[in-house]
Amino acid sequence: MPYVRWLGLAFQHIAPGQVDFLMPNRPEITFDGKAVQAGPIGALLDFSGGAAAFTLAPAGVLLSTIDYSVKLLAPAIGESFLGRGQVISAGKSLTVARADVFALTDRGQRQIATGLVTMRAAA
Amino acid sequence: MPYVRWLGLAFQHIAPGQVDFLMPNRPEITFDGKAVQAGPIGALLDFSGGAAAFTLAPAGVLLSTIDYSVKLLAPAIGESFLGRGQVISAGKSLTVARADVFALTDRGQRQIATGLVTMRAAA
Amino acid sequence: MPYVRWLGLAFQHIAPGQVDFLMPNRPEITFDGKAVQAGPIGALLDFSGGAAAFTLAPAGVLLSTIDYSVKLLAPAIGESFLGRGQVISAGKSLTVARADVFALTDRGQRQIATGLVTMRAAA
Amino acid sequence: MPYVRWLGLAFQHIAPGQVDFLMPNRPEITFDGKAVQAGPIGALLDFSGGAAAFTLAPAGVLLSTIDYSVKLLAPAIGESFLGRGQVISAGKSLTVARADVFALTDRGQRQIATGLVTMRAAA
Repeated sequence: MPYVRWLGLAFQHIAPGQVDFLMPNRPEITFDGKAVQAGPIGALLDFSGGAAAFTLAPAGVLLSTIDYSVKLLAPAIGESFLGRGQVISAGKSLTVARADVFALTDRGQRQIATGLVTMRAAA
Repeated sequence: MPYVRWLGLAFQHIAPGQVDFLMPNRPEITFDGKAVQAGPIGALLDFSGGAAAFTLAPAGVLLSTIDYSVKLLAPAIGESFLGRGQVISAGKSLTVARADVFALTDRGQRQIATGLVTMRAAA
Repeated sequence: MPYVRWLGLAFQHIAPGQVDFLMPNRPEITFDGKAVQAGPIGALLDFSGGAAAFTLAPAGVLLSTIDYSVKLLAPAIGESFLGRGQVISAGKSLTVARADVFALTDRGQRQIATGLVTMRAAA
Repeated sequence: MPYVRWLGLAFQHIAPGQVDFLMPNRPEITFDGKAVQAGPIGALLDFSGGAAAFTLAPAGVLLSTIDYSVKLLAPAIGESFLGRGQVISAGKSLTVARADVFALTDRGQRQIATGLVTMRAAA
């Protein structure tokens, strides 16, 4: 997936219903060379929730995002960002996950975004 | 803004409370070389709603996104994408815009996403 | 539908893909005898979007709400409230509508809320 | 608050940043005498998230809902419903809470809704 590769997303943890991704900060995804735009933060959030949904999907079932919402809680400033997706409800056709994004710095981690992701199984 | 430049966003139309952006399709923003990921579609939606809000902001006031939601209505397949932001309510501290995204092909245009964007004036 | 009756919702206009509802203000739905709670405003918004979706559903197909979002733009003060639902996308299984709520007073109408409603056809 | 009283909401648990409410099922809030409408479920969700935000607000500060979103995960069938609000981020002007709703029956509890609530401090 070219866009995932471009963002530099790397799995950090996978368990049934839960996935952690790491995304490095880079000037290309910022609006001022430092703080990351809302777009890449939303992309990380969507991937985290979507990947968490995939961990519970039956083999061979393809899921695609039908909606995601992004609440930005603090400026997206950090050396890298942790996206954590966690399934709340996995149905036959729709799966809903919450997703949280944390900024990682040498002083620790701080939550900067939260949202919900809904995935649908391809018919 | 490096990320806006990387996405290739270009203004197509600006009026008070309304902005249209064009975003070209490129393999780098797809998940399979063809259909654009939810992330860049959300970014286009956020920029469109946010820019519409800026057209109504007093001079010198900086706005930043505090939330956006993205409903994906159809696969993001097209030669380029039109993002249309339209302010619904402009308050002193918060501005809410709706934003719609259309896929453009040689057969016409089709709406592929809708959502809402909330911007806050910097304190 | 007992809750619709209790809220006093009345159709004001129906067309394919669009429905207007009127809801009277009453002390029972306020938090202070005057301004309506966020809950009944969200209910009006949900009913408006949902009813708009029903106007496009094939005969015999039942739809139910799978999500709705409510942005409150101004205090819900008025003699009555107009909910306007408008379908954005009607698919085989999912229909998405935007919905807007306006407060009606003797000085005119003012938008007080906007949101999106997603309906799913019963399997 | 007349609407809260009409819904029959009762506190079940309060701690800093977290509130649990109980709401009884009654025919008046259903669409068929049995399953509760999306509106009252959204109202419970909004009250739960909003009350959680109030537990962290400075004395004398009034908060009001500026948005809430409701994802319905399963039919709202139960003897009563538990709304659980939990603050994710408490800022000077905006507080964001997640809120979950569970149906309670004699066979146990089942999550039927999730969402996010944003509260703003009155200027």
